[in-house]
Amino acid sequence: MERRVFRKLVSLEEALSLALSSVEPKPLGVEVVSLEEAVGRVLAEDILAPIDVPPFDRSSVDGYAVRAEDTYGAQYGSPKELKVVGKVGAGEFFDGLLSKGEAVEVSTGAPLPRGANAVVMVEHAFTKNGFVYVTRPVHPGENLAPAGSDVSRDEPVLLRGTLLDAVSVGVLAALGLKEVKVFRKPVVAVISVGDELVEPGTSLSYGRVYDVNSWTLSYLVEQCGCEALRMGIVGDSLREIEEAVLKALEVADVVLLSGGTSAGSGDLVYRALEELGELVFHGIAAKPGKPTALAVVRQKPVIALPGYPVSALAMFLLVARPLLMGYLGARHSPTLTARVRAAVRMASPMGRREFLPSILAKSGGDLLTFPIPGGSGAIASLLSADCLVMIPEDREFVEAGEELDAILPWGELRVADLIFVGEHCVGAWALLAMASKRAGFDYRAVDAGSSGGLNALRAGVADVAGICLYDKASKSYNTPEVLRRRGVSCVVYRGYQRVLGVMTAPQNPLGVSGFEDIVSRGLRIVNWRKGSFLRTLIDLELEKVAEKRGASLEDVARCVEGYGVEVSSHSEAALAVASGAADVGFGLERVAKRFGLGFIPLWLEDYDFAVAANRVKKPSVKALLEVLKSREFRSFLSQTGGFVVPDDLGSPKF
Amino acid sequence: MERRVFRKLVSLEEALSLALSSVEPKPLGVEVVSLEEAVGRVLAEDILAPIDVPPFDRSSVDGYAVRAEDTYGAQYGSPKELKVVGKVGAGEFFDGLLSKGEAVEVSTGAPLPRGANAVVMVEHAFTKNGFVYVTRPVHPGENLAPAGSDVSRDEPVLLRGTLLDAVSVGVLAALGLKEVKVFRKPVVAVISVGDELVEPGTSLSYGRVYDVNSWTLSYLVEQCGCEALRMGIVGDSLREIEEAVLKALEVADVVLLSGGTSAGSGDLVYRALEELGELVFHGIAAKPGKPTALAVVRQKPVIALPGYPVSALAMFLLVARPLLMGYLGARHSPTLTARVRAAVRMASPMGRREFLPSILAKSGGDLLTFPIPGGSGAIASLLSADCLVMIPEDREFVEAGEELDAILPWGELRVADLIFVGEHCVGAWALLAMASKRAGFDYRAVDAGSSGGLNALRAGVADVAGICLYDKASKSYNTPEVLRRRGVSCVVYRGYQRVLGVMTAPQNPLGVSGFEDIVSRGLRIVNWRKGSFLRTLIDLELEKVAEKRGASLEDVARCVEGYGVEVSSHSEAALAVASGAADVGFGLERVAKRFGLGFIPLWLEDYDFAVAANRVKKPSVKALLEVLKSREFRSFLSQTGGFVVPDDLGSPKF
Repeated sequence: MERRVFRKLVSLEEALSLALSSVEPKPLGVEVVSLEEAVGRVLAEDILAPIDVPPFDRSSVDGYAVRAEDTYGAQYGSPKELKVVGKVGAGEFFDGLLSKGEAVEVSTGAPLPRGANAVVMVEHAFTKNGFVYVTRPVHPGENLAPAGSDVSRDEPVLLRGTLLDAVSVGVLAALGLKEVKVFRKPVVAVISVGDELVEPGTSLSYGRVYDVNSWTLSYLVEQCGCEALRMGIVGDSLREIEEAVLKALEVADVVLLSGGTSAGSGDLVYRALEELGELVFHGIAAKPGKPTALAVVRQKPVIALPGYPVSALAMFLLVARPLLMGYLGARHSPTLTARVRAAVRMASPMGRREFLPSILAKSGGDLLTFPIPGGSGAIASLLSADCLVMIPEDREFVEAGEELDAILPWGELRVADLIFVGEHCVGAWALLAMASKRAGFDYRAVDAGSSGGLNALRAGVADVAGICLYDKASKSYNTPEVLRRRGVSCVVYRGYQRVLGVMTAPQNPLGVSGFEDIVSRGLRIVNWRKGSFLRTLIDLELEKVAEKRGASLEDVARCVEGYGVEVSSHSEAALAVASGAADVGFGLERVAKRFGLGFIPLWLEDYDFAVAANRVKKPSVKALLEVLKSREFRSFLSQTGGFVVPDDLGSPKF
Repeated sequence: MERRVFRKLVSLEEALSLALSSVEPKPLGVEVVSLEEAVGRVLAEDILAPIDVPPFDRSSVDGYAVRAEDTYGAQYGSPKELKVVGKVGAGEFFDGLLSKGEAVEVSTGAPLPRGANAVVMVEHAFTKNGFVYVTRPVHPGENLAPAGSDVSRDEPVLLRGTLLDAVSVGVLAALGLKEVKVFRKPVVAVISVGDELVEPGTSLSYGRVYDVNSWTLSYLVEQCGCEALRMGIVGDSLREIEEAVLKALEVADVVLLSGGTSAGSGDLVYRALEELGELVFHGIAAKPGKPTALAVVRQKPVIALPGYPVSALAMFLLVARPLLMGYLGARHSPTLTARVRAAVRMASPMGRREFLPSILAKSGGDLLTFPIPGGSGAIASLLSADCLVMIPEDREFVEAGEELDAILPWGELRVADLIFVGEHCVGAWALLAMASKRAGFDYRAVDAGSSGGLNALRAGVADVAGICLYDKASKSYNTPEVLRRRGVSCVVYRGYQRVLGVMTAPQNPLGVSGFEDIVSRGLRIVNWRKGSFLRTLIDLELEKVAEKRGASLEDVARCVEGYGVEVSSHSEAALAVASGAADVGFGLERVAKRFGLGFIPLWLEDYDFAVAANRVKKPSVKALLEVLKSREFRSFLSQTGGFVVPDDLGSPKF
């Protein structure tokens, strides 16, 4: 089988218009529901008020219904005397005509007695021997609501296509309606495709991942007001996919597939759709979201979404949701967007509209946005994302300060109380969680490396950056010089040190003692990716060994088996050693312990907290700094292991 | 029974802190739910990642896993040749070590083969005879996601108190979790109190209204994440109220009452609460919302909310919801607010914080706000309300242009596509509905009278005003002079005329012919409220009769029985005639017909549409003006009756 490259990408607008014109989604029928079941449903009829609300001129307050003229000139010192000729509670009415010099006691909501044209509030009157003494005049119409002033009979109150909420159901009740006509709920089948997918709750073998999309998409479908049928996982097999789609079409109005759509070996979804029906488009000029397709099978739309969670979400909102809205019959419900300002320079592929999961921060009157690294495969980036920033097709770069549009996928503008950007560390992440729980604030923690943290600090996005920056010259971390060079104005608080070193097989059976040993004994290592911080540390140690021998790093490296075998994560390094593929790996003590490996500490990394100079007194930041110094956090670090905790944890370094 | 005046009003802050300290709401227990039922629930445990996500270094694209060094210098014209030594699909893994000069074909999501440190995208390679030719170099780490880069094992991912949504459930799935611990849902009983209340779906006798609050509050309670038990209506009886509260407390954690709480004859709710338990506060310095109370009965809170829908909503959000959040255990969920700018001057009572249902309009970078007249009794004002504007206790006035805080009760910032403010008219309201449905725009229609409409136009809030302004001097309506005098820059489009006149008993059995007749035969009338437009018209006619007789208006008025009996609405005028309480009333032909009354046309009122000069080309306004000229609208007016429709309906007047 030859690999298939997307041949004709359509723009998002084309995709949507092709989808709408080939499917022409319309409401799927009408049913009658009672008010108990009405919220979240879409009205299938115009509601014209069958009655006036209120149905009669009514008192808006507790007090005395009067002829306003009778109160003119009333003062606290010289009240006007009126004869109380009756009393009307709510639900009652006064069966007579109020004459000059008379008053009727009324409750809030009571019908205004005939002849009265205003109501004196009880606070402005006192009673004695069957008379009321009015201490302040009222003008005609004061303190009353005319019949129909709330809703006038025959007026259109709620229109066909309205999504019913708590208040609109309240209005239906006010009109005396007990049932309404609504459109039938569209039924949407949700299927995940991929041999690598496993249901949560089962065990995970190497190479497999848990299915995310069928869960997320099902709930998003329900949030739209549709009924979701989560149909689980289907493997990468043409027959399985076809059978699943046909089975879904028997019960559903729309089928949503996700995964199995990339141009790789697994592009079976397209072939299945082509065989089952008519493929309307295949490939959208968007990133993420390129591998999105739509087919019409048995007059129903089958939408194939990308497998990556961020891609699936973006394409669901931009392509699938408008179709579902058509079936729902909902009148007006655009995806919420906002104008935001780029906090940092961003690169983007030409010719494709890019959607970057990003956080939002308020700065002056602006909404600053900062992209969350990690790409569309990262479900956690969605958890932190306040928006998806859109970079137009015709831009290769967006400069810091430029205005952009952003999708607010949660239907609301979210800005967290504290924004943390920096080097990922279990310690810092736990600190944020502790402080948030103790002080009750909301936070975003973005893993963008130390440099990313400082950029976010300088741009006014981050309140706090978690940094771990090695200065080769001074051989120390997070120095004032390093920060000055980057133009960041901040206060640095002392954090902790992370222990890095050599990972060996459990209990170090080979008796590995260090780099000298590794080189001389020709042990098999697993290296770190070029450009990574650990690679720098490893190369520095190998240089020392080389110097002693009067050789170059290259010479020494050539002798080390596995020097060219690189990993990108502590877990993979540990896994290589644990599986016996390497004798020696390098990484965090914490991770080595977790895999039960032997460990020789070699390096200490300073992890510190840089706080933007103008945010030191922000309540959430203060709370964070307090917890940083706390016994609770200190004991968390020592229990977790792999950290060295200084006595002055949490005090300002400079 | 003496009337009770609220003696000690507490501030909103005091009310809330008294409520929280006397009740100390805490989560009500923990239960385990599966992912299928998890959305909308509140986490009762911290979720620390049990695995890395992704669990292995994985390819982010379809392509070829390589050693990046092997691709250096690759160009489209001179590609680098690598031997393809294997193929890994998603869910599979490569059981070997990739060496120099080799590549492994990988699918998106596949584990990176050991020895590789980057992936070449399929778009940048072609294959031939078991070799792949790379046309663009990659750097180490390119196109791969390290293990744990999305979520790192042991890191806190979701905290106790998180309200689970589609994405957080996706994250739980990504971690392989099938079940989570959540807090039990608080059960909230909702009861409406009032003899005047009737269930929707039943018939309405005079003086009664349909119950609204039990519906609205139940749905709001459910939106918070609680379980609502709508327990219906209870009459104004001490025993009934007590029994209902005790019955509710058997099954519910919180009881919400509404209505029956004002200082009038019906303040039975307080007495019931005092007898059943301990009253914590009674009366809040807020408008609306003064008659709000909280008691602790059998260790559970019973909250008495005002009966008016707007008051009940505001107090629910500000007092009841924070308590419910405590029981829910939700970590962070403040009521959404926004800074808005007053479009017009607003008066407010000193010493009470006022909440005004208002619409929002965008103007430049500002959010302008305009209050919806009608007060807290009007449920329809909530339907149009985009926010509740807060006026502080210490302000008697807020000037146009001042900044204020506003509550966004729907949890989102809503601004409609078209804002219409003006004189209420069934014709205009139907026009808006027609245009909205045809063009698919969202609108707000605010009944604020003609002057209110012009104020909203001048302030930049309204796009269109519906006006009906009589100029005594020229004896005509909506003249350029009238508008110039008010400083409004607008284009006026010709509307229609409304027919007003004399209402008589069905088929006019007394043969009433006009005002001369009414005065000379001493017929019993029902007058309109002083200051109303119809009262002006009536007095003008009576002046004519008086002039002919050489008498004053006062003289003539004294001879007319019922001159002092005033109504405020067309419906009440018609009702007085229909019930035989008066021989003659005055009002709209349309309303007279609806009551089956006789009618003599006397006056024609011009109802026109003033469009802000700078909004004439706004798409929603253009759509409205098109429908104004349409055959559909014309035929609506003639079918409804009571309108005179000019040939040039919808064309610009000036």
